[in-house]
Amino acid sequence: MNTINLEQKLALFSDYWSPKIIGELNGQLVKLAKFKGEFVWHKHDNEDEFFYVIKGMLKIDFRDKEVTINEGEFIIVPRGVEHKPVAKDEVSVLLFEPETTLNTGDIKNVLTKDVLEKI
Amino acid sequence: MNTINLEQKLALFSDYWSPKIIGELNGQLVKLAKFKGEFVWHKHDNEDEFFYVIKGMLKIDFRDKEVTINEGEFIIVPRGVEHKPVAKDEVSVLLFEPETTLNTGDIKNVLTKDVLEKI
Repeated sequence: MNTINLEQKLALFSDYWSPKIIGELNGQLVKLAKFKGEFVWHKHDNEDEFFYVIKGMLKIDFRDKEVTINEGEFIIVPRGVEHKPVAKDEVSVLLFEPETTLNTGDIKNVLTKDVLEKI
Repeated sequence: MNTINLEQKLALFSDYWSPKIIGELNGQLVKLAKFKGEFVWHKHDNEDEFFYVIKGMLKIDFRDKEVTINEGEFIIVPRGVEHKPVAKDEVSVLLFEPETTLNTGDIKNVLTKDVLEKI
Protein backbone atom coordinates (compact mmCIF):
# COMPACT_ATOMS: atom_id res chain seq x y z
CA MET A 1 0.00 0.00 0.00
CA ASN A 2 2.10 2.86 -1.34
CA THR A 3 1.44 6.38 -2.46
CA ILE A 4 1.52 6.90 -6.21
CA ASN A 5 2.87 10.17 -7.56
CA LEU A 6 1.35 11.08 -10.92
CA GLU A 7 4.30 13.19 -12.09
CA GLN A 8 6.75 10.43 -11.30
CA LYS A 9 4.65 7.88 -13.15
CA LEU A 10 4.23 10.17 -16.15
CA ALA A 11 8.01 10.43 -16.40
CA LEU A 12 8.24 6.67 -16.95
CA PHE A 13 6.80 6.59 -20.45
CA SER A 14 6.48 8.66 -23.57
CA ASP A 15 4.42 6.60 -26.01
CA TYR A 16 1.05 7.96 -27.06
CA TRP A 17 -2.34 6.25 -26.95
CA SER A 18 -1.00 3.47 -24.74
CA PRO A 19 -2.59 3.62 -21.29
CA LYS A 20 -0.53 2.35 -18.36
CA ILE A 21 -2.08 0.79 -15.27
CA ILE A 22 -1.16 2.56 -12.04
CA GLY A 23 -3.83 1.23 -9.70
CA GLU A 24 -6.62 -1.32 -9.28
CA LEU A 25 -9.69 -1.17 -7.07
CA ASN A 26 -13.14 -2.66 -7.06
CA GLY A 27 -12.73 -4.16 -10.51
CA GLN A 28 -11.74 -0.79 -11.91
CA LEU A 29 -8.37 0.34 -13.19
CA VAL A 30 -6.63 3.65 -12.66
CA LYS A 31 -4.58 4.44 -15.74
CA LEU A 32 -2.31 7.14 -17.05
CA ALA A 33 -1.99 7.97 -20.72
CA LYS A 34 -0.42 10.51 -23.00
CA PHE A 35 -2.26 11.51 -26.13
CA LYS A 36 -1.10 13.45 -29.14
CA GLY A 37 -2.82 13.70 -32.49
CA GLU A 38 -6.16 12.19 -33.44
CA PHE A 39 -7.46 8.91 -32.11
CA VAL A 40 -10.04 6.74 -33.81
CA TRP A 41 -13.82 7.10 -33.57
CA HIS A 42 -15.11 4.40 -31.22
CA LYS A 43 -17.51 3.61 -28.41
CA HIS A 44 -17.61 1.28 -25.45
CA ASP A 45 -20.80 -0.75 -25.31
CA ASN A 46 -20.52 -1.65 -21.62
CA GLU A 47 -18.24 0.86 -19.98
CA ASP A 48 -18.47 4.51 -19.03
CA GLU A 49 -15.12 6.27 -19.30
CA PHE A 50 -13.58 8.96 -17.08
CA PHE A 51 -10.93 11.31 -18.54
CA TYR A 52 -9.19 13.74 -16.16
CA VAL A 53 -6.68 16.14 -17.70
CA ILE A 54 -3.52 16.40 -15.59
CA LYS A 55 -1.55 18.50 -18.05
CA GLY A 56 -2.39 20.01 -21.40
CA MET A 57 -5.72 20.23 -23.17
CA LEU A 58 -7.88 17.44 -24.55
CA LYS A 59 -10.61 17.79 -27.11
CA ILE A 60 -13.16 15.05 -27.52
CA ASP A 61 -15.26 15.02 -30.65
CA PHE A 62 -18.76 13.64 -30.40
CA ARG A 63 -21.08 13.15 -33.35
CA ASP A 64 -23.06 16.27 -32.40
CA LYS A 65 -20.50 18.48 -30.64
CA GLU A 66 -16.96 18.82 -29.44
CA VAL A 67 -15.87 19.30 -25.85
CA THR A 68 -12.63 20.78 -24.54
CA ILE A 69 -11.25 19.47 -21.26
CA ASN A 70 -8.61 21.67 -19.68
CA GLU A 71 -6.15 20.95 -16.87
CA GLY A 72 -7.97 20.17 -13.64
CA GLU A 73 -11.13 19.12 -15.44
CA PHE A 74 -12.72 15.78 -16.24
CA ILE A 75 -15.48 14.37 -18.38
CA ILE A 76 -17.39 11.11 -18.16
CA VAL A 77 -18.26 9.59 -21.52
CA PRO A 78 -21.25 7.29 -21.07
CA ARG A 79 -21.25 3.81 -22.57
CA GLY A 80 -22.49 3.62 -26.11
CA VAL A 81 -21.54 7.18 -27.02
CA GLU A 82 -19.23 7.49 -30.03
CA HIS A 83 -16.25 9.71 -29.39
CA LYS A 84 -12.85 10.60 -30.79
CA PRO A 85 -10.15 12.08 -28.54
CA VAL A 86 -7.99 14.71 -30.21
CA ALA A 87 -4.89 16.31 -28.73
CA LYS A 88 -3.36 19.12 -30.75
CA ASP A 89 -0.40 19.10 -28.37
CA GLU A 90 0.61 16.42 -25.89
CA VAL A 91 -1.86 15.91 -23.06
CA SER A 92 -1.54 13.74 -19.97
CA VAL A 93 -4.71 12.13 -18.67
CA LEU A 94 -5.86 10.03 -15.75
CA LEU A 95 -8.43 7.36 -16.62
CA PHE A 96 -10.79 5.35 -14.42
CA GLU A 97 -12.45 2.46 -16.15
CA PRO A 98 -13.52 -1.12 -15.62
CA GLU A 99 -10.90 -3.81 -16.15
CA THR A 100 -12.78 -4.88 -19.26
CA THR A 101 -12.27 -1.58 -21.10
CA LEU A 102 -10.40 -1.77 -24.39
CA ASN A 103 -8.86 1.53 -25.49
CA THR A 104 -10.41 1.42 -28.95
CA GLY A 105 -13.76 0.11 -27.72
CA ASP A 106 -15.70 -1.59 -30.51
CA ILE A 107 -12.94 -0.97 -33.07
CA LYS A 108 -9.91 -3.17 -33.56
CA ASN A 109 -7.01 -1.61 -35.37
CA VAL A 110 -3.34 -0.77 -35.07
CA LEU A 111 -4.10 1.47 -32.09
CA THR A 112 -5.73 -1.32 -30.08
CA LYS A 113 -3.85 -2.27 -26.92
CA ASP A 114 -4.94 -5.71 -25.75
CA VAL A 115 -2.45 -5.91 -22.93
CA LEU A 116 -1.60 -2.88 -20.83
CA GLU A 117 1.64 -2.37 -18.99
CA LYS A 118 1.61 -1.79 -15.26
CA ILE A 119 4.03 0.90 -14.19
CA MET B 1 -22.20 15.33 -20.73
CA ASN B 2 -20.27 18.29 -19.34
CA THR B 3 -16.75 18.94 -18.22
CA ILE B 4 -16.32 19.18 -14.47
CA ASN B 5 -13.75 21.61 -13.08
CA LEU B 6 -12.38 20.50 -9.71
CA GLU B 7 -11.47 24.01 -8.51
CA GLN B 8 -14.93 25.31 -9.31
CA LYS B 9 -16.57 22.41 -7.51
CA LEU B 10 -14.29 22.83 -4.48
CA ALA B 11 -15.41 26.45 -4.20
CA LEU B 12 -19.00 25.31 -3.69
CA PHE B 13 -18.59 23.89 -0.19
CA SER B 14 -16.54 24.31 2.94
CA ASP B 15 -17.73 21.63 5.34
CA TYR B 16 -15.25 18.99 6.38
CA TRP B 17 -15.64 15.21 6.22
CA SER B 18 -18.70 15.47 4.03
CA PRO B 19 -17.97 14.07 0.57
CA LYS B 20 -19.89 15.55 -2.36
CA ILE B 21 -20.76 13.56 -5.47
CA ILE B 22 -19.43 15.07 -8.68
CA GLY B 23 -19.68 12.12 -11.03
CA GLU B 24 -21.03 8.60 -11.48
CA LEU B 25 -19.78 5.82 -13.71
CA ASN B 26 -19.92 2.04 -13.77
CA GLY B 27 -21.52 1.86 -10.33
CA GLN B 28 -18.73 3.99 -8.89
CA LEU B 29 -18.90 7.54 -7.58
CA VAL B 30 -16.42 10.34 -8.06
CA LYS B 31 -16.46 12.55 -4.97
CA LEU B 32 -14.77 15.63 -3.63
CA ALA B 33 -14.13 16.21 0.05
CA LYS B 34 -12.33 18.57 2.36
CA PHE B 35 -10.76 17.17 5.48
CA LYS B 36 -9.38 18.94 8.51
CA GLY B 37 -8.53 17.41 11.84
CA GLU B 38 -8.75 13.74 12.76
CA PHE B 39 -11.35 11.36 11.41
CA VAL B 40 -12.45 8.15 13.08
CA TRP B 41 -10.76 4.75 12.81
CA HIS B 42 -12.81 2.61 10.44
CA LYS B 43 -12.65 0.09 7.62
CA HIS B 44 -14.78 -0.81 4.63
CA ASP B 45 -15.53 -4.51 4.47
CA ASN B 46 -16.45 -4.56 0.78
CA GLU B 47 -14.89 -1.53 -0.84
CA ASP B 48 -11.39 -0.43 -1.76
CA GLU B 49 -10.96 3.33 -1.46
CA PHE B 50 -9.03 5.76 -3.65
CA PHE B 51 -7.78 9.07 -2.16
CA TYR B 52 -6.14 11.58 -4.51
CA VAL B 53 -4.80 14.79 -2.94
CA ILE B 54 -5.69 17.85 -5.02
CA LYS B 55 -4.46 20.43 -2.54
CA GLY B 56 -2.75 20.15 0.83
CA MET B 57 -1.36 17.11 2.58
CA LEU B 58 -3.19 14.08 3.92
CA LYS B 59 -1.90 11.64 6.46
CA ILE B 60 -3.54 8.27 6.85
CA ASP B 61 -2.82 6.29 9.97
CA PHE B 62 -2.84 2.53 9.68
CA ARG B 63 -2.47 0.17 12.63
CA ASP B 64 1.14 -0.57 11.68
CA LYS B 65 2.30 2.63 9.96
CA GLU B 66 1.35 6.08 8.77
CA VAL B 67 1.43 7.28 5.19
CA THR B 68 1.65 10.84 3.91
CA ILE B 69 -0.07 11.70 0.62
CA ASN B 70 1.04 14.97 -0.94
CA GLU B 71 -0.48 17.01 -3.73
CA GLY B 72 -0.56 15.07 -6.97
CA GLU B 73 -0.42 11.71 -5.19
CA PHE B 74 -2.96 9.03 -4.43
CA ILE B 75 -3.30 5.94 -2.32
CA ILE B 76 -5.64 2.97 -2.58
CA VAL B 77 -6.75 1.60 0.77
CA PRO B 78 -7.82 -2.03 0.30
CA ARG B 79 -11.08 -3.29 1.77
CA GLY B 80 -10.82 -4.54 5.32
CA VAL B 81 -7.85 -2.37 6.25
CA GLU B 82 -8.41 -0.12 9.27
CA HIS B 83 -7.42 3.47 8.65
CA LYS B 84 -7.81 6.94 10.08
CA PRO B 85 -7.39 10.00 7.84
CA VAL B 86 -5.71 12.95 9.56
CA ALA B 87 -5.32 16.45 8.11
CA LYS B 88 -3.29 18.87 10.17
CA ASP B 89 -4.35 21.63 7.79
CA GLU B 90 -7.20 21.63 5.31
CA VAL B 91 -6.78 19.18 2.48
CA SER B 92 -8.90 18.72 -0.66
CA VAL B 93 -9.25 15.20 -1.97
CA LEU B 94 -10.79 13.38 -4.90
CA LEU B 95 -12.37 10.05 -4.04
CA PHE B 96 -13.33 7.22 -6.33
CA GLU B 97 -15.38 4.48 -4.72
CA PRO B 98 -18.39 2.22 -5.20
CA GLU B 99 -21.85 3.70 -4.67
CA THR B 100 -22.19 1.53 -1.58
CA THR B 101 -19.31 3.16 0.30
CA LEU B 102 -20.19 4.82 3.61
CA ASN B 103 -17.70 7.44 4.73
CA THR B 104 -17.25 5.94 8.19
CA GLY B 105 -17.27 2.35 6.93
CA ASP B 106 -18.16 -0.08 9.71
CA ILE B 107 -18.58 2.69 12.28
CA LYS B 108 -21.75 4.70 12.79
CA ASN B 109 -21.34 7.97 14.62
CA VAL B 110 -21.87 11.70 14.35
CA LEU B 111 -19.49 11.82 11.37
CA THR B 112 -21.49 9.31 9.32
CA LYS B 113 -23.04 10.74 6.17
CA ASP B 114 -25.84 8.49 4.97
CA VAL B 115 -26.91 10.76 2.14
CA LEU B 116 -24.37 12.66 0.09
CA GLU B 117 -25.06 15.87 -1.73
CA LYS B 118 -24.49 16.08 -5.46
CA ILE B 119 -22.83 19.31 -6.51
